[in-house]
Amino acid sequence: MTTTQTFGELDHPSRLLMGPGPINVHPRVLRAMSVQLLGQFDPEFTGYMNETMALYRQVFQTQNRWTFLIDGTSRAAIEAALVSVLAPGDDVVVVNAGRFGLLLSEIAQRCDAKVTTVEGEWGKVVDPQAVEDAVKRVRPRLVACVHGDTSTTMAQPIAAIGEICQRYDALLYVDATATIGGMSTPVDAWRADIVTGGLQKCLGGPSGSGPITISDRAAEHINGRKHVEAGIATAGSVAGNGRRIASNYFDLAMIMDYWSDKRLNHHTEAASMLYAARECARVVLEEGLQARFARHAQAGAAVVAGVEAMGLSVYGDKAHKMTNVTAVVIPPGVDGDRVRARMRTDFEIEIGTAFGPLAGKVWRIGAMGVNARKHAVLTTLAALEAVLRGEGYGFTAGAGVDAALGVFS
Amino acid sequence: MTTTQTFGELDHPSRLLMGPGPINVHPRVLRAMSVQLLGQFDPEFTGYMNETMALYRQVFQTQNRWTFLIDGTSRAAIEAALVSVLAPGDDVVVVNAGRFGLLLSEIAQRCDAKVTTVEGEWGKVVDPQAVEDAVKRVRPRLVACVHGDTSTTMAQPIAAIGEICQRYDALLYVDATATIGGMSTPVDAWRADIVTGGLQKCLGGPSGSGPITISDRAAEHINGRKHVEAGIATAGSVAGNGRRIASNYFDLAMIMDYWSDKRLNHHTEAASMLYAARECARVVLEEGLQARFARHAQAGAAVVAGVEAMGLSVYGDKAHKMTNVTAVVIPPGVDGDRVRARMRTDFEIEIGTAFGPLAGKVWRIGAMGVNARKHAVLTTLAALEAVLRGEGYGFTAGAGVDAALGVFS
Repeated sequence: MTTTQTFGELDHPSRLLMGPGPINVHPRVLRAMSVQLLGQFDPEFTGYMNETMALYRQVFQTQNRWTFLIDGTSRAAIEAALVSVLAPGDDVVVVNAGRFGLLLSEIAQRCDAKVTTVEGEWGKVVDPQAVEDAVKRVRPRLVACVHGDTSTTMAQPIAAIGEICQRYDALLYVDATATIGGMSTPVDAWRADIVTGGLQKCLGGPSGSGPITISDRAAEHINGRKHVEAGIATAGSVAGNGRRIASNYFDLAMIMDYWSDKRLNHHTEAASMLYAARECARVVLEEGLQARFARHAQAGAAVVAGVEAMGLSVYGDKAHKMTNVTAVVIPPGVDGDRVRARMRTDFEIEIGTAFGPLAGKVWRIGAMGVNARKHAVLTTLAALEAVLRGEGYGFTAGAGVDAALGVFS
Repeated sequence: MTTTQTFGELDHPSRLLMGPGPINVHPRVLRAMSVQLLGQFDPEFTGYMNETMALYRQVFQTQNRWTFLIDGTSRAAIEAALVSVLAPGDDVVVVNAGRFGLLLSEIAQRCDAKVTTVEGEWGKVVDPQAVEDAVKRVRPRLVACVHGDTSTTMAQPIAAIGEICQRYDALLYVDATATIGGMSTPVDAWRADIVTGGLQKCLGGPSGSGPITISDRAAEHINGRKHVEAGIATAGSVAGNGRRIASNYFDLAMIMDYWSDKRLNHHTEAASMLYAARECARVVLEEGLQARFARHAQAGAAVVAGVEAMGLSVYGDKAHKMTNVTAVVIPPGVDGDRVRARMRTDFEIEIGTAFGPLAGKVWRIGAMGVNARKHAVLTTLAALEAVLRGEGYGFTAGAGVDAALGVFS
């Protein structure tokens, strides 16, 4: 038989998470997850589902009826969007200038869609004209784009792409995982059809629930592919004529039925994560979207001012930089991983590493959710100063913290 | 703009959940979810991941190296298993005698597999000889089977099917969502290749994390289909020759890389749900598997004794009934939905309704996890007695509770 192994209670240091996410969860959200369950069809629980829909309409700045949660991480919500829209052979144009643009291509390829990418340089945003050229040539079913790609820290302007999609009658999908709740993601003003998020960045929750919003025209397309599963089909079940969606778990047509008054059983809703998502939205809306975006912008500006005052450079096109995460170029002669390790072991602060072409070249410092605040930014900069001094990197002691303080005052 | 709508804190009655799941979460698991996060590659966090693997090996009674969590509900884990094994055109034999057997067929069809079903009558288990006949004829890549199907309350004996799969060199997948942690699910003794579960039944947690275990031979097959995504591929990435897995999120080859020492980034682990899953397993193993199975068996026997003493009949083949859930035939002249509503509104107790051919015909009463205990069973029976009296159903008052008490003493 198996060896008996026992482990103790969760018991780890309190760590300040200043990477690109996950970040520290708001204490109210932690408490919401410790609330006891209800049955999934209890009127109180379906009431919470409806409230969650109403809350996320406000977070997404949309009137979309179909605004709810996917039970999985932000990546699950992305896949639900793409697999529910794209049938094999459908054309999709993917705007790609970072790791998460690559992810959209990768998922679309697995849908057996015909993928055309509009490639941008890492550290810059993509010219809408290049997107229009591709859309005009391909006339795709869908254009897919990342709003804020944390791999490069660039925030792609979406409205211009939304306008192109309207003009060429393409659906627009936007991955707003890394910006929702921290930068404005005005779904209706963008004219985006499907937008997805995640809790673990600016919304200040844990990974594991993916908010999604779907326009009526996208819902109509998706419902045209509906095939109700045999276990719950009844004489009254309505099926579409389109090709069946390749995933059961991510079949948005069935998931919409579950979140509608029909309450047609699909999965068993992940109740504790719904409690978390609901509380994240309540915290965000009580603060107010504009105040929250301003707070993230200020904290991001303070990080930039601080690292620049230390003689470090910020990576990428600053005109289009995400407010909530900053990529800092690792100076010559400094071991980036050793700095991160000392930040963690000496100060219990996490800053992020990087992927692909930027691996070993930049640190990524996030200031998101509950950590997009003065004390978190100042403490992080003070720690970074001390560690860099220890590594022999020369700069004026105190300059980083003072510059950041200046932004806050 | 959107209308402003605000909602208050989570504030609902404390309800005893005695349906087929979800059930009340163990208080220790609720507390674990309120613990603050760590970064996903923090050594403490990857340590928790490794501990969770070791804990679930013991829960699954297996030596399988590849034992971890899928970030989604139990249905997500089922889909991950099927889509990672089955390429389009692969033959699969599905053992089907309930709603969740139908679900396996449904998901396998969406994988474009060739599905052969061995159909059993609802309320009975399937004869292994029928499975062998189908396997001999079809020579499938995979046999897929539900262990405990809550729609019928039947527990299919798995060992005989495991032996058939060995003999005909087929992989065996078992859905143990409704039994894991409550009835024995001896993965290695069954000779099952992939087994999945969920937290929300006998493990006493919330829905939203799906434990999975994978044999070496199944892992070898799945890794033969590996295609590392472009965003994280390096010169050293190893890709297989098989047809790429149709899902990115459910690509077990990539998820195994994430849970291995390589820590190749896939999703951002749903940390709070991992905390929950880890604590569920700790609670289960501290009690001891055999003691826990016995406790569920006793509680189930008490439910049966109680309802029978009230003159009600238990649905299905009692020789193969799951211990943790009991389907009770709704007597003539009694409105099943009204009884459930009164149980809820007068006693704050939830019992379950039924699906498909059993809709309106049976109630399903679960006694699982923290609720597989004397007080929960007795309280439920006392409430059911009172409600049935109110509905004019005739029986000896007190008979149900007394019979159940007899089982516990």
